[in-house]
Parts: sequence; structure tokens; C-alpha cells
Amino acid sequence: MKSILLVTSNLGKVEEISKHLGKFGIKVAGKKMEMPEIGEDQETIAKGKAEFAVQKLILPVIVEDTGLYFDAYKDFPGIRSKFVFQAIGYEGILKLLENKSRKAYFKTVMVYCDPNEEPKIFVGINPGRIAEAVRGVSHPRLPYDSVFVPDGDDRTFAEMTKEEKAKYSARAKAAEEFARWFLSK
Amino acid sequence: MKSILLVTSNLGKVEEISKHLGKFGIKVAGKKMEMPEIGEDQETIAKGKAEFAVQKLILPVIVEDTGLYFDAYKDFPGIRSKFVFQAIGYEGILKLLENKSRKAYFKTVMVYCDPNEEPKIFVGINPGRIAEAVRGVSHPRLPYDSVFVPDGDDRTFAEMTKEEKAKYSARAKAAEEFARWFLSK
Repeated sequence: MKSILLVTSNLGKVEEISKHLGKFGIKVAGKKMEMPEIGEDQETIAKGKAEFAVQKLILPVIVEDTGLYFDAYKDFPGIRSKFVFQAIGYEGILKLLENKSRKAYFKTVMVYCDPNEEPKIFVGINPGRIAEAVRGVSHPRLPYDSVFVPDGDDRTFAEMTKEEKAKYSARAKAAEEFARWFLSK
Repeated sequence: MKSILLVTSNLGKVEEISKHLGKFGIKVAGKKMEMPEIGEDQETIAKGKAEFAVQKLILPVIVEDTGLYFDAYKDFPGIRSKFVFQAIGYEGILKLLENKSRKAYFKTVMVYCDPNEEPKIFVGINPGRIAEAVRGVSHPRLPYDSVFVPDGDDRTFAEMTKEEKAKYSARAKAAEEFARWFLSK
């Protein structure tokens, strides 16, 4: 069985990614680390974090980052999804989308990096829309799940089981891309 | 005449800070540098930048950072003032404040750091409100000037001369705090 180290400032995400990669027979261990965020887009930031972690650990690693993007605004909340939710909450988000396009998508970037190779980037996209109101109770780490409705469903992520959500999830898609490459490596 | 090096990723701010410090007989030279942003508040981020710059240059430096805070939301747009404007623009900002408190303030943090001392932090605050509409043409680097009305005036910053704005400006206040300390040093 192959295994990989997931480096993150938030060990809360290890369980979900373990489940996605476990389906492909890849075992995940989590390692907590604060990594500098440098750059203006998810790919650049995640690549920089992975390179930073590899330099510290001298081991192959993956890092993962997920952002939400509203069609109505430019790269928003994007790389600042967590900051924006903490600052303006559901009220601010729903206000911003009044009378605007409600289309949105989640994007996950997963970066694999090892000490001898250039970082490799895997992307998963999950298109959908922002609901008119908060529906369902989301994990505190994933507040947007209570307002995001994936294309092909009428429920928010927070109204689904984990298994139902995984069918749509950008994170599951990026994990699958990575897994197929990693297993063939 | 004393002089100081202002390290910044944006040389556009050198002129304004030169003017504020020039009143106290302090000469400012600008040095462009990209510095990592680490932390969740202006003070921590500016301090980290100043320490980074000092390590690179082995010279006394100042760094400056200004953020805007809306009373209606939590630490917003704050350390992400530039990002938020680029993403949601005036339209998004005015939408967020509909039927909400319009109170707001600018906060400038100026950090002095030299190779032999702990960093020293100077803060300037400028209370005011966000106008109901965009008024006046602001410098592209200072877009919030077209919606910010300082307490004690009815005009936005963009409707004032530079000299009129300087009477209120958080940046001018932080610069003055620094100047008085620096001259007595």
C-alpha cells in the first residue's frame, strides 16, 4: 500500500482527504505545519506551501487548498474564502449576491512535491450555485457548505450525507486526479 | 537632517509618507521589496515585514500598512482591503453596507525596526463613515478615498486637496507619532 504525508495548518481536513485517497488504496498521514502564503492565486500559493514543507521535511508531501468563486465578482472570495466568511458571514454573502448571478464553483488545488522533482498540481472543480438562504448545518470548518448547491442537485452540501457530497466535491475530484497519477508513478 | 528607509512593495506610497515626515525634517528614501505577509492583524503583519527587511538590508527601516474597517463587519476589509476592493469594487462595498452602520475607520500601522532593537509600532486612526455613493476621483492605489468621509467633514477624501486630507489621515497621524519618537531617539 502506498502512503503520503498531507501537510496542513488544519488537521481537520486529514480525515476527509484520507477517505478520498483511501478508495484508491493510498494511506494518508497528517502533519501540522504553518506555511507562508505567497501569491495571488490558489495554484501559486499551494505550490509555494508544498515547496516550503518539502524543504523542512525532506520527504514527499501533498498540500491541499479549496476556494469558492462567485460568478458575480472577480476571484472572490477565492483565496480569501475563510477570511471573507469570518468577516461578513452568511448575511454579508447573501447581501452581496442579491439581484446578481448566483453561479459559483468550488476549486480544489492539490500539490504533490518531493525533494527531487518539480511540484505537480492537480485541480478539481465543482460547479453550482449559492442558495437564497442558509440550509443545513455545516461543519464549522466548511461554512459555505450551508449555502452551496452543486449542479445536478437541489440540496446544499450541508443537507447531504458525506457520501452524497463526495460525488460532487472538488476536493474528491482533485484527490482522484492525484491518486491516478500517484499510483501510476 | 535625519533620514530613514521606507521598504515597500509599492513605491507609490513613498511620496505621501515623504511629505508627512518631511514636515518634521526627516528625509525618506524608498526601497522596493516583496515581503512575506504572515499574521492575522496589521500589527503582526507589518512587524514581520519590517523584521524581514532588516534581515535582508542590515539597515534601520520603516514599513507602513493602512487598512479600512467597517463597523458593520468583523475586521473587514482590514488586512484584505486591497483584495476586497479588487474583487467586489464599489458596487459590492455599497451593497454590503445597505441598511447597516456606515461607520468606518482607517488604521495605519508604521513599524520602525533596526538590526539591534525590537521593532517599534506606531498607530494612527482616522474615524469616519462610508458615503452612500462614490464621490470624487481617487488615486487608483487609494480607491476607498472615493467613499470615505472623515468625521468632521462632509466630503470624501477624493473630494479634498492633499493638504485637506492630511489633516485627518491615519497615515499622517502614524507618521507624526513615529517622527516625534525618532527625533527624540
